[in-house]
Amino acid sequence: MKKINIGLIGLGTIGEGVYKILNSRRSEIKKSYGLELNIKSCCDISPNIAKKLKIKKEYFTNNYNDIVFSKDIDVVIELIGGLKISKDIAIKTLQNNKHFITANKALIAENGTELKKIAKKNNVKILYEASVGGGIPILNSIQDFISINKIKSFYGILNGTCNYILTLMSQGIEFNDALEKAQKSGFAEADPTLDINGMDTAHKVVVLANECFGYNAKIKDLHISGINNISKIDLEIAKNLNCKIKLIGIGKVVKNSIDLRIHLVMINHSNPLANVDNELNAVLIDSENLGKTMKYGFGAGMLPTATSVISDIVRIGNQKEHNFIEKKYKNLNISNLNRKFYIRLNLENKAGNLAKITSKFAKYKINIEKIFQNPENVNSKYVPVIIISKKSNYKVINNLLSQFDKLSITNKKSLLIPFEE
Amino acid sequence: MKKINIGLIGLGTIGEGVYKILNSRRSEIKKSYGLELNIKSCCDISPNIAKKLKIKKEYFTNNYNDIVFSKDIDVVIELIGGLKISKDIAIKTLQNNKHFITANKALIAENGTELKKIAKKNNVKILYEASVGGGIPILNSIQDFISINKIKSFYGILNGTCNYILTLMSQGIEFNDALEKAQKSGFAEADPTLDINGMDTAHKVVVLANECFGYNAKIKDLHISGINNISKIDLEIAKNLNCKIKLIGIGKVVKNSIDLRIHLVMINHSNPLANVDNELNAVLIDSENLGKTMKYGFGAGMLPTATSVISDIVRIGNQKEHNFIEKKYKNLNISNLNRKFYIRLNLENKAGNLAKITSKFAKYKINIEKIFQNPENVNSKYVPVIIISKKSNYKVINNLLSQFDKLSITNKKSLLIPFEE
Repeated sequence: MKKINIGLIGLGTIGEGVYKILNSRRSEIKKSYGLELNIKSCCDISPNIAKKLKIKKEYFTNNYNDIVFSKDIDVVIELIGGLKISKDIAIKTLQNNKHFITANKALIAENGTELKKIAKKNNVKILYEASVGGGIPILNSIQDFISINKIKSFYGILNGTCNYILTLMSQGIEFNDALEKAQKSGFAEADPTLDINGMDTAHKVVVLANECFGYNAKIKDLHISGINNISKIDLEIAKNLNCKIKLIGIGKVVKNSIDLRIHLVMINHSNPLANVDNELNAVLIDSENLGKTMKYGFGAGMLPTATSVISDIVRIGNQKEHNFIEKKYKNLNISNLNRKFYIRLNLENKAGNLAKITSKFAKYKINIEKIFQNPENVNSKYVPVIIISKKSNYKVINNLLSQFDKLSITNKKSLLIPFEE
Repeated sequence: MKKINIGLIGLGTIGEGVYKILNSRRSEIKKSYGLELNIKSCCDISPNIAKKLKIKKEYFTNNYNDIVFSKDIDVVIELIGGLKISKDIAIKTLQNNKHFITANKALIAENGTELKKIAKKNNVKILYEASVGGGIPILNSIQDFISINKIKSFYGILNGTCNYILTLMSQGIEFNDALEKAQKSGFAEADPTLDINGMDTAHKVVVLANECFGYNAKIKDLHISGINNISKIDLEIAKNLNCKIKLIGIGKVVKNSIDLRIHLVMINHSNPLANVDNELNAVLIDSENLGKTMKYGFGAGMLPTATSVISDIVRIGNQKEHNFIEKKYKNLNISNLNRKFYIRLNLENKAGNLAKITSKFAKYKINIEKIFQNPENVNSKYVPVIIISKKSNYKVINNLLSQFDKLSITNKKSLLIPFEE
């Protein structure tokens, strides 16, 4: 029997879940894994939460230094989020020869490489299963296979808020109403900026790229866009094309280059990611030996995320960690992307404008496969014109679209979505 | 650095894959997991395969006793299939204090409990990740979570041959042609009996029930049916009902009872299993903490299966095995199943027969939701009549259907498929 003493910092939703599961499944974990898990100390800025969870005074502190410097604690779990304090906790924990577990994707995306080095130097582990895909066990299972089987690419629906909004919009609800409904249902936060603009997905892409390819990506090198610019009409047209629009985090190795992008994509209904709806998350991994495999489940929520956190404790108790093998790649830029594209222009409803557009397309040798104009809007000042291009270059189309914006024949930033297979 | 000496018995497709991957990824496995994996001896009845794989004489034998009794070998991998010899290999391996790895689902389904006891007594491990879902890592990841998170049910598409045939049939191809095509494409064996009749799925259900619920199921206690009786028309009608027909292995705990069944089900398009097509496999697990999660990928094939076998070796090297906690449950019988049903009768095309049928349904209080008759077949001697029942009892309907067969107003065994959510 192996004893593990735990310090738990942050008793918000996930922290509460960890506390509850550790208490309710204590004896099963003992019997099954031979591990005795004791919560030695909890920390939160609010003493009210200690009362709510019935944590005795001697097991509670509002100063995290009591935990990271304690001689009695083996594993520190950080669940406060944010970047500054969590980094301080991580560094002090690892430097004091304690294992560190977190659900904080931003912390790992920004400081993972540095923290791993400190962990290695101090011969302790840093684990963060809950940081990507919440309740979908993904990172640790990648570690278990990574050296047997080379990963070629991942495609992930990694943000439940965006996926929920896109699902509602595909049922005919406009963006603002969908966002409001998501907030009411608890699938979007009061300030959903980091979800909507793709940054949350980007953090997860950085973490996944590290696990899958051994590559230390930097947020600033990624193409990141979110779902801000999408409208109900785009989802209607996608349906007519037998497609769905999803916000996808993409990671792909092409020879010595790495392709990391976060943006909306058009995917065919037959793609398994197309059927991942509502607040669900999924990660599709293509590897040399296993081909395409997909994992699907709840990407957030108290119990799923807390379960992943606890699986990390069990892993610390029962398993040797694998050695991280770092690799270098050249960053591919989205400018080089050649795809079929979905393009929506909000065109000023004036004779000759459509001709201007199509002649520009011809001039830049972008072949048009289909062109639609929404007949409902014929009397509006601006009408949405949808163009499906044949395989073209992202940069060429994107430059062309900014030209239209400058000519003031379009009223809003145009929408450009690649088709992915 | 930990050295593991391996004895490999059976150099068929999977064995060849294991041999190749172990050689090609030796240095990565060493660097990443700190394990030196050496193939110490290979065994096959055919010496030709040794030539093909360029295995030196001193590393090859055609007598498996050379391997199971060897003092130099730590892990024996059995990849010959079948029941009798594989069981002998397993017992001798474990009794000689060697770890045992297999991809043989029948062996584990029939003798798993006995073999686990011998392994425990001799303080060695028995692992069989490749026996269910081929390249989808499923069993070991269940072990990693089982004591943190209680599993409520699993629903699996576990047989690639059946799923491939059903996919072809949904595209308008009849059973026999679909089977032939599956054989030509390598997705069905020359003798596909155990796939088609559901027995292969049943073996996997027994293995999964053991992992998920700690329950030692016996094949003879399960309701097992396959895809023998299905016709193109059933898949056409399923499409019209916005459903798909899949062969599913089901395991479910309901209070103190366990519900294990293998049969065709009607599932709505929105069910994630409905979109698992062609030769792909998937397992949907519903658990207390994680809710519904699904894993999806290739269930067979040389490289996927071999990769799972090798992940078991790495697990033996790097991880404590969990203790198996056995549980008892009462077996639920399919007779108690209450569902909406899809019923196809091949009715003698004679005035009054339909009235006989519908009045019998009324007499037994089975409510009919919809009834169809295929208009193409009006001049045939027998016509398929499809009835969608409201929620009814399996046993009552099944008894009624045998009455029709006895009255000789139907020509073939009728088809009865429950709708599952």
